[in-house]
Amino acid sequence: MMNVGYKVLLALTLWMMITEAFPKGHQKTKCHLSKYKSLPPGYLEAFKKAKDKFEDIMLLSDQKCRTRIFHRNWKVKQLSVHDRVILVEKEMNVTINVLENVEDPSLSELLSKPLEILIQIREDLRDCTRQTLPHSERLKNWLQNFDESKEKETPGCLEASVILNLFRLLNEDLRCIAHMKVCV
Amino acid sequence: MMNVGYKVLLALTLWMMITEAFPKGHQKTKCHLSKYKSLPPGYLEAFKKAKDKFEDIMLLSDQKCRTRIFHRNWKVKQLSVHDRVILVEKEMNVTINVLENVEDPSLSELLSKPLEILIQIREDLRDCTRQTLPHSERLKNWLQNFDESKEKETPGCLEASVILNLFRLLNEDLRCIAHMKVCV
Repeated sequence: MMNVGYKVLLALTLWMMITEAFPKGHQKTKCHLSKYKSLPPGYLEAFKKAKDKFEDIMLLSDQKCRTRIFHRNWKVKQLSVHDRVILVEKEMNVTINVLENVEDPSLSELLSKPLEILIQIREDLRDCTRQTLPHSERLKNWLQNFDESKEKETPGCLEASVILNLFRLLNEDLRCIAHMKVCV
Repeated sequence: MMNVGYKVLLALTLWMMITEAFPKGHQKTKCHLSKYKSLPPGYLEAFKKAKDKFEDIMLLSDQKCRTRIFHRNWKVKQLSVHDRVILVEKEMNVTINVLENVEDPSLSELLSKPLEILIQIREDLRDCTRQTLPHSERLKNWLQNFDESKEKETPGCLEASVILNLFRLLNEDLRCIAHMKVCV
């Protein structure tokens, strides 16, 4: 028979082993965006190739828009740190959805590497938006306008808007949230 | 009275002074393109600003084209050195004409510095194309197609084509002729 002291020690050891093997959700997923302060040159090169190809063929199809769907007259740094991530996640979702449905095979082939990168970034963003906080009025208005206006646009307009917005999304918006509070 | 020797010397001196002061046309204009091997970063920044602004507003207007007017399925380096300069001069002429007529004031303001640079480059190109040589069949066909197709396009298409072609013109075509025979 073990004495009480040994029993307590054994129970404690087993509990520690179990919690180590099955960590809770909020312990598994951590918010790591600082790696996006600058993207590797190879990544940007893949985006540039796709954008160049798109520019080469875009004028042959109809991509006229009613509005500038990504337009805003403020900078992402003017939002709170949490709102910034929500904004970029939203832009990223739409970008990925549109690029996944590009029909031109010469372009969609060039988009496979960029899409892989964007999907990875989206995963990382999701780890940072699990906590639900109320949005600012500025963000709420923008999100509402964005959703409404993109519903009214043609697939040609959405494709062009998303591709022309790619570098702002990566070099300004994503970079800003990677710098957290230091983005000023 | 001067003797004959002095007279000859005086005449010779005067002739040299006159020819120095009023050099003949072909002596004044020399072909100097090597400075365009790489453009100063400030120049490219001015072009980038204008292109970014254009991308921001281009989808709101109609710029659909019938053809890709600057398209060619060969590289500029596949032409003779003389033909290359003719090609770039032609592209430059059309680019300047179109950009000088841009109506959007927010864009035309940003285009004033790029236009200044392009006009200087055109001057330098003209100094290199005073000698008239027969063109290759490849260049002749391209020039003919270019002239015919641009006549059929709308101003919106021409504006978009010219702006989207700017960086190829500067970074590939102009750089190639700046390297003369070394562009391979």
